[in-house]
Amino acid sequence: MTTPATAPTQFTAPNLYIEAGNGITYAYRRFGSTGPEMTPLLFLQHFRGNLDNWDPLLIDAIAAEREVILLDNTGVGGSSGRTPNSVTAMAHDALAFVDALGLRTLDILGFSLGGFVAQELTLIRPHLVNRLVLAGTGPQGGEQMHGFTSDVLDAATRDEPTGEDFVSLFFERTPTSIGKGWEFVDRICSRTQDRDAPTSLQTRDAQLDAITTWGIPDPTRLHRLSGITHPTLVANGDHDILIPTRNSRLLASNLPNAALSIYPGAGHGFLFQHPEEFAAEVNAFLD
Amino acid sequence: MTTPATAPTQFTAPNLYIEAGNGITYAYRRFGSTGPEMTPLLFLQHFRGNLDNWDPLLIDAIAAEREVILLDNTGVGGSSGRTPNSVTAMAHDALAFVDALGLRTLDILGFSLGGFVAQELTLIRPHLVNRLVLAGTGPQGGEQMHGFTSDVLDAATRDEPTGEDFVSLFFERTPTSIGKGWEFVDRICSRTQDRDAPTSLQTRDAQLDAITTWGIPDPTRLHRLSGITHPTLVANGDHDILIPTRNSRLLASNLPNAALSIYPGAGHGFLFQHPEEFAAEVNAFLD
Repeated sequence: MTTPATAPTQFTAPNLYIEAGNGITYAYRRFGSTGPEMTPLLFLQHFRGNLDNWDPLLIDAIAAEREVILLDNTGVGGSSGRTPNSVTAMAHDALAFVDALGLRTLDILGFSLGGFVAQELTLIRPHLVNRLVLAGTGPQGGEQMHGFTSDVLDAATRDEPTGEDFVSLFFERTPTSIGKGWEFVDRICSRTQDRDAPTSLQTRDAQLDAITTWGIPDPTRLHRLSGITHPTLVANGDHDILIPTRNSRLLASNLPNAALSIYPGAGHGFLFQHPEEFAAEVNAFLD
Repeated sequence: MTTPATAPTQFTAPNLYIEAGNGITYAYRRFGSTGPEMTPLLFLQHFRGNLDNWDPLLIDAIAAEREVILLDNTGVGGSSGRTPNSVTAMAHDALAFVDALGLRTLDILGFSLGGFVAQELTLIRPHLVNRLVLAGTGPQGGEQMHGFTSDVLDAATRDEPTGEDFVSLFFERTPTSIGKGWEFVDRICSRTQDRDAPTSLQTRDAQLDAITTWGIPDPTRLHRLSGITHPTLVANGDHDILIPTRNSRLLASNLPNAALSIYPGAGHGFLFQHPEEFAAEVNAFLD
């Protein structure tokens, strides 16, 4: 009846679970092309996002060329524990997961909050990381990153987030971008079997404190970026209202080995507005 | 048959145990000359080191003139618990041990990672500390301290460290220094009764993250050194490949009340290459 032995995708890959040395059981998905000399790509997710919030078009296009690992960090979605309220604690938690898998080297794609965690993790354990993609994110102590505007805060923190919220936060207010936004919302709702557990309000509140603390204005924190000597691709839309695009420029100019890619006519969710284009850029960068 | 009532030494001092307020049972040794007005000297140990890694020649020469306390911090060697992954947590743990002993004032000698912990402990509780010796160590956010070179990392993190690893990491690559290195290895292996428990791979991994995090490039962290007004002796070999010697110079130039002593023709393990000379320098400094 069904065709057997098709490769898993973001629609079909099973939710996996592993207990780490810190006592947390992590939910994750791991699939895609493997081969000798190939490094898996770990995805670190945005505020309130779980495994299902990764766009299937983006993930599957990347997974066609490399192994991908999607992670619910501590307390998020199907993972156990309480979500911590600092980026440093989140980085240590992600490292505990990586250690549980026994990985000795990996690439990382961090989006938004996940990009904060990716930077911190790389500073804590630089020898673990091969290459880094920092999407829609900014440096600790960056510019205009200290708390959201009230409109953004309302839409981002609602107890029951809606499709409208996603579209208004992640996409530009143009008919083209809004149309792409609704297509994205359809895609992330399309998996019906074995969906991830929703993120809790405890996760929302702890992540919001962590994000706001990371954004406390402090230009002296930029010195730390000199410790991330890894090849890094920094990318964003040209009109990000969650983590203003100037912070992507700050990252690229302070990281010793970074390239910057700005998508015009796009916001924070540029990678979901242009999933195939961004997947191709990521694959080319990581090859 | 045996001569009774000889003074305990690093070969013979019993392993002692005390439970602290944080629930951890600490393994330690405490011996040497005591007297009124004399302050005990607490030794804080290097990466992966336990009680047996302190050179008997160095320790016994210091213990001839003052009381010495050797400590396994949390999770290390014979102490209980899991080793934490931050220097700040290690400093709080060492303070819990000091409090359990009921000590109100002490001198501290911190070597390498132990020197990071000594600085942090002194910043947290300056009134506890009388004088400070910082050997083969560097300030938070120092220079070229963010992760080891790959050769050093391999030798320092091997699952089963060898005598060759100690010699290559701690000693200069000259025949004289290498010869001294093997004499040191013989000395730390010479205790046969009541040896300390070996350090675990959990300790290795957590300490490595703590060391790397301490080394994240950040010149703004040097301001903190103005909070250590205690008389301090900073010492190192002139060719330290683990914590480059320039960091000892940074310490000495940023600490308000420090003297600098650099041993030529020596590396990180200068204090084990010149144990009697360094013991005399420490005793003179602390008197």
